[in-house]
Amino acid sequence: MTVKELTLQSLYEDMVKWRRHLHQHPELSFHEFETSKMIADLLDSWGLEVRRGVSGTGVVARLKGDLPGRTIALRADIDALAIQDAKSSSYRSTVQGVMHACGHDGHTAELLAVARYYSLHKEETAGTRVFLFQPGEEVLPGGAVGMIEDGALEGVDAIYGVHLWSPMPYGTATTRPGPFMATPDEFEITIKGRGGHGGLPHECKDALVAGASLVVALQTIVARNVNPLDAAVLSVGRFESGTANNVIAANCKISGTVRSFNKGIRDIVRKRMEEIVKHTCEMHGCDYEFRYFEGYPPVVNDEREALRVLRVIQDVLPETAAAPGERIMAGEDFSYYLERKPGCFFFVGAGSETEASAPHHHPLFDIEEKAMLHAARLLIAVADDSALDLT
Amino acid sequence: MTVKELTLQSLYEDMVKWRRHLHQHPELSFHEFETSKMIADLLDSWGLEVRRGVSGTGVVARLKGDLPGRTIALRADIDALAIQDAKSSSYRSTVQGVMHACGHDGHTAELLAVARYYSLHKEETAGTRVFLFQPGEEVLPGGAVGMIEDGALEGVDAIYGVHLWSPMPYGTATTRPGPFMATPDEFEITIKGRGGHGGLPHECKDALVAGASLVVALQTIVARNVNPLDAAVLSVGRFESGTANNVIAANCKISGTVRSFNKGIRDIVRKRMEEIVKHTCEMHGCDYEFRYFEGYPPVVNDEREALRVLRVIQDVLPETAAAPGERIMAGEDFSYYLERKPGCFFFVGAGSETEASAPHHHPLFDIEEKAMLHAARLLIAVADDSALDLT
Amino acid sequence: MTVKELTLQSLYEDMVKWRRHLHQHPELSFHEFETSKMIADLLDSWGLEVRRGVSGTGVVARLKGDLPGRTIALRADIDALAIQDAKSSSYRSTVQGVMHACGHDGHTAELLAVARYYSLHKEETAGTRVFLFQPGEEVLPGGAVGMIEDGALEGVDAIYGVHLWSPMPYGTATTRPGPFMATPDEFEITIKGRGGHGGLPHECKDALVAGASLVVALQTIVARNVNPLDAAVLSVGRFESGTANNVIAANCKISGTVRSFNKGIRDIVRKRMEEIVKHTCEMHGCDYEFRYFEGYPPVVNDEREALRVLRVIQDVLPETAAAPGERIMAGEDFSYYLERKPGCFFFVGAGSETEASAPHHHPLFDIEEKAMLHAARLLIAVADDSALDLT
Amino acid sequence: MTVKELTLQSLYEDMVKWRRHLHQHPELSFHEFETSKMIADLLDSWGLEVRRGVSGTGVVARLKGDLPGRTIALRADIDALAIQDAKSSSYRSTVQGVMHACGHDGHTAELLAVARYYSLHKEETAGTRVFLFQPGEEVLPGGAVGMIEDGALEGVDAIYGVHLWSPMPYGTATTRPGPFMATPDEFEITIKGRGGHGGLPHECKDALVAGASLVVALQTIVARNVNPLDAAVLSVGRFESGTANNVIAANCKISGTVRSFNKGIRDIVRKRMEEIVKHTCEMHGCDYEFRYFEGYPPVVNDEREALRVLRVIQDVLPETAAAPGERIMAGEDFSYYLERKPGCFFFVGAGSETEASAPHHHPLFDIEEKAMLHAARLLIAVADDSALDLT
Repeated sequence: MTVKELTLQSLYEDMVKWRRHLHQHPELSFHEFETSKMIADLLDSWGLEVRRGVSGTGVVARLKGDLPGRTIALRADIDALAIQDAKSSSYRSTVQGVMHACGHDGHTAELLAVARYYSLHKEETAGTRVFLFQPGEEVLPGGAVGMIEDGALEGVDAIYGVHLWSPMPYGTATTRPGPFMATPDEFEITIKGRGGHGGLPHECKDALVAGASLVVALQTIVARNVNPLDAAVLSVGRFESGTANNVIAANCKISGTVRSFNKGIRDIVRKRMEEIVKHTCEMHGCDYEFRYFEGYPPVVNDEREALRVLRVIQDVLPETAAAPGERIMAGEDFSYYLERKPGCFFFVGAGSETEASAPHHHPLFDIEEKAMLHAARLLIAVADDSALDLT
Repeated sequence: MTVKELTLQSLYEDMVKWRRHLHQHPELSFHEFETSKMIADLLDSWGLEVRRGVSGTGVVARLKGDLPGRTIALRADIDALAIQDAKSSSYRSTVQGVMHACGHDGHTAELLAVARYYSLHKEETAGTRVFLFQPGEEVLPGGAVGMIEDGALEGVDAIYGVHLWSPMPYGTATTRPGPFMATPDEFEITIKGRGGHGGLPHECKDALVAGASLVVALQTIVARNVNPLDAAVLSVGRFESGTANNVIAANCKISGTVRSFNKGIRDIVRKRMEEIVKHTCEMHGCDYEFRYFEGYPPVVNDEREALRVLRVIQDVLPETAAAPGERIMAGEDFSYYLERKPGCFFFVGAGSETEASAPHHHPLFDIEEKAMLHAARLLIAVADDSALDLT
Repeated sequence: MTVKELTLQSLYEDMVKWRRHLHQHPELSFHEFETSKMIADLLDSWGLEVRRGVSGTGVVARLKGDLPGRTIALRADIDALAIQDAKSSSYRSTVQGVMHACGHDGHTAELLAVARYYSLHKEETAGTRVFLFQPGEEVLPGGAVGMIEDGALEGVDAIYGVHLWSPMPYGTATTRPGPFMATPDEFEITIKGRGGHGGLPHECKDALVAGASLVVALQTIVARNVNPLDAAVLSVGRFESGTANNVIAANCKISGTVRSFNKGIRDIVRKRMEEIVKHTCEMHGCDYEFRYFEGYPPVVNDEREALRVLRVIQDVLPETAAAPGERIMAGEDFSYYLERKPGCFFFVGAGSETEASAPHHHPLFDIEEKAMLHAARLLIAVADDSALDLT
Repeated sequence: MTVKELTLQSLYEDMVKWRRHLHQHPELSFHEFETSKMIADLLDSWGLEVRRGVSGTGVVARLKGDLPGRTIALRADIDALAIQDAKSSSYRSTVQGVMHACGHDGHTAELLAVARYYSLHKEETAGTRVFLFQPGEEVLPGGAVGMIEDGALEGVDAIYGVHLWSPMPYGTATTRPGPFMATPDEFEITIKGRGGHGGLPHECKDALVAGASLVVALQTIVARNVNPLDAAVLSVGRFESGTANNVIAANCKISGTVRSFNKGIRDIVRKRMEEIVKHTCEMHGCDYEFRYFEGYPPVVNDEREALRVLRVIQDVLPETAAAPGERIMAGEDFSYYLERKPGCFFFVGAGSETEASAPHHHPLFDIEEKAMLHAARLLIAVADDSALDLT
């Protein structure tokens, strides 16, 4: 085992401590005040050049290695979710209705460990490392936007980020060149008809029948209007209409999500929705309001950087598959960094080795903590490889 | 003006007093304790033969005229609704969340006046009058059933009832031979699919899409399966499905009403619903529960009795149309009496003379009180005509 | 048996002869040249005042009785259909592809017999009889229009017509006051999308899917937009789309019929169709053409005249029901006469006494010929009754 | 320019001659008698070891190079289509209703040239070349099946094939590891209801409405049941129902195509179709027949062989993109060879350099003949590379 690996392993105990502290004291998106302070204080104490209050609660720290090389940014998101922790573990959330149910506590802890590692190996480090602790990944418009506006990418040559992922077993890691994560758009449709007595339909504009017809008609978008070789999902998640069995409904509320991997497909889906909503409602004599909320852009990994990460994964975790992974239907605001800089976002398996884990955003969500060590090791190996890439 | 007419007019002030008292003190279906007591005490005080506690809170009173004739029953319903009175009138409901929003207070008052009238004209009355004050018209299974089981129709030759009707202008009255009011059935459908992530539809059974498809498919019943010369309505009044925009719905609840005028049509609609619900749910891989609640039977007026009432209406209210009226898509448990005895149910216009009135079951519902006088006058004229009909 | 009845019975043999001759030599609508000549020649030979070539192939004859009375028109239609006769009877059609498959041969024969009857009983006849032998009942715009324009109703006080009807058993007859027969409208919808390879739906506008969605959406008209107490049918009879399994359809043709009993309902259905066709096609990015052909107006019998006919039916055929009959979903251009004059159209049962008959417009259609005698007897009785009605 | 390249270029004139001869004398699938004879005679004349009548009209020829190496098969398909040639060129088809509208004439000519080339460079050739001239690619079950059963792959180490492709511009070539071409399944659905009068829907089982509902319901398969990251198309290409505007349709015929790239997806689509057809028809009281015809398996290129071909393409046509191409929604029976041997199928651009070309299977289809030279050059380079691949 190398000295560097020894350093990293010696930091595991700290990682677990930091992660559990954050897990017990989660803070909602854009309100990560204590989290931010803890991060900045630690980085300060290790001698990094720290900038606090980046775009609110963000922290950016820099460390210049003694050897020449490129400037490599590594990013962690630090916010928690409005979910009530239902675990029984000793380190469960102490904050009512707030929980680290997506692993950002782990992301923070592992990036702190990486920063600490570099502070101990400054003389052997080529180039500069920039550590981005970003707020508000969970909530539109996404904390990445503010970080970038506040200069977080200045001088950066490449950027990498990692997500601990409970659906993947511990011991694995993956990414993929090109489109990797989806753009998670949402929509809300309100239909206004004219209610009335259940026995007098001809005096009404039945908003419920209009809404049901709309749901059926929306199925044709993915089936007919999207290139079958592209990927898109349109799911209506909620439908509420009517107040009583014997009263024809005056109103109908429909909402849902649209997922795709490129702007062209999103634009097609959105345009077709507008047409179908308009014509279905007008056909039934109803008024409507259609609101479409664009989520983060798709995470599109740089071709070359993704191949680098895949190669590093094979070196670091030789037992995992080297082939590019499948696309993921979830979204991430890491996409904003990738729109500006070459880089790659990758996943590290944080599921149990033996049994099914609760999914992300679930009240019982937890991670296999050892996966943080994999994530840290991969971030360092990727950063060191990239820093010396002078082609 | 005849003596009898003078008697009736002199009772108008009492009618208004009684009606307003009941309006201020409404009682829910099958809980009409004070209402029932007030009715029985009044009838007692006028010397009628009174039976209290008929099928719970019902009251039946008899009065035998001095002249020979048939036994004629007249019925009023006495229950109120679970609606919050929103009127500003001095006589608005004093009971939180309970209101006489369908005119049963007027029905009670006018039948009391009719009973008082006969007690004053006993020597000129042919045959016997039976006064039925029935509880629970608004709630299945309907108070009429219990009244009949408890002997309310014993010895009765014919029965009549009246509904004050605010959509009809004051001064009018109507009825129709044969089917007059609909059978107001209800249904509830619960669909159980398999929920999941909004981006992973292939792992789910989308209960919302199954429900929407079901609503659309149900439209074919009236359009294709019911004889166009018959009348039927199937209205889905409520649709609730899903919990979040980005989660595919595991459940869907659909409920509504079915209206028709004869058992054959109801059976066709119900059978087609069973088939369509079953096949739509199974098509989408969902489980389901389908519950169908048969409402009151249709109100089918006796041919001959309806013609009698139409004739009497023309005598009493010569300015109103003599032609049979349209069928009404509402229901009434008066149908149970008509399944057992010849008779007729009719409507008396209780709308404003000048402006639109709030519909029945509306928080602002009220009646033109003078319509009670029309109703009482018609009930007496019909009963007297029928009592002497020895053909 | 009266002398008059003896006369009529003695004409039965002629009726059968005339009817079978016409059955063997059917002529298409507005091409009834030989039929017209035969009719006019016979009427001439009996001394009636005959006008040939009325609106083409129509014939109008008048006979003034010696007694005073009103002028009563009786009408028969004389055209055949473009159907190949598949019967094996001796009197089957001798014309390839043309057939009296709706009983107009019988109508013609029985009205000839009625004219002959009156020519033999002129001195006992009150008022005037006008005999209308009308071409082209089967084809829009209907021969009645031209007959009226050419003066066929001049001086007429009332008009009556009869249809021999194989679905009704021999020995019966019926009619009904008010709406009796439907308005048989038709429609044709052409949808133009953009075709293409079956594997590339996103490059196409799928006219077939637009058409299928349209058929489904049209079901809501009868289910939701027509008063349940009114009658309407919308049936799509034909749907043709596409040319090959693996080619997305560029075109779709949909056509069908709409039936109702009054202009208000027709207008609602037509307007809703326009809206639904427009919005469904535009929703799917398709162009369209929507053509709606208004059929004959509904046959609406005069209230008073229908009651007269019902009374006469009860006199002449005492064993048949006196109650008004059901409405019929077929159409008739007799409606045009009834828009201008009081009158009544009625049906005479011409089905077999013992077994099921082929329906109208069927290649095996035939009538029970004795029904012609019923029809003739009823026409005479109604005309004589009406001629003396001076109220 | 090398000697080998000179040889190949000198053969171009022959290629054009052969191709035009075949183009003028096209033969339908499995009836390629003259085509087969011409091929075999030429190969014979060049001294190859020729086997005629392989699985009917197939030809297999072998040529053993003087140097050691693997046995490499190259395949051309030789059949034409039942399409009427609408071109005005001098070499247009002389056979009524038969046409080389998919470029198989070019495939044959270019593979003949390749065989001729090897016969001239035997002493420098490593390993053996097997030339497969296959009948019936256009018609199920595909000529490849019979060729394989008749031993065409015996001793073969790897196999390659090429398609001239008019939608791709001249000068390009592409392929892709893994799934490359779709499985082109077809289906036919017959629905049997009960017809009747357009005004009497309640007496019928409307097969047209059942069919329209089915088309709408089928849209949910791609939209909901197929993994959005997989590709599938279900296109209904034809819909025929009904015979007259005013008659409710007793029958409905629906047919179309299903395309996907793996058996799992095909199985899901097929199973969902079975369920949706069954339940939609039963819901509407109709009987049905559902027939599903599995087309060729998907063309799945060997990972390693596809990378080889991509590398060779970059060498031979350096101006074309080296990245793997998109999947193609068309099918090919080359898939059967790839189920048994490593290999790769690839496309060579045969569109015009300057203007849009008619698509494959179009009456005006033609190829840029110079593309045959690209195809021949690539086949030789791939075969030579592969023959020496001893890893």
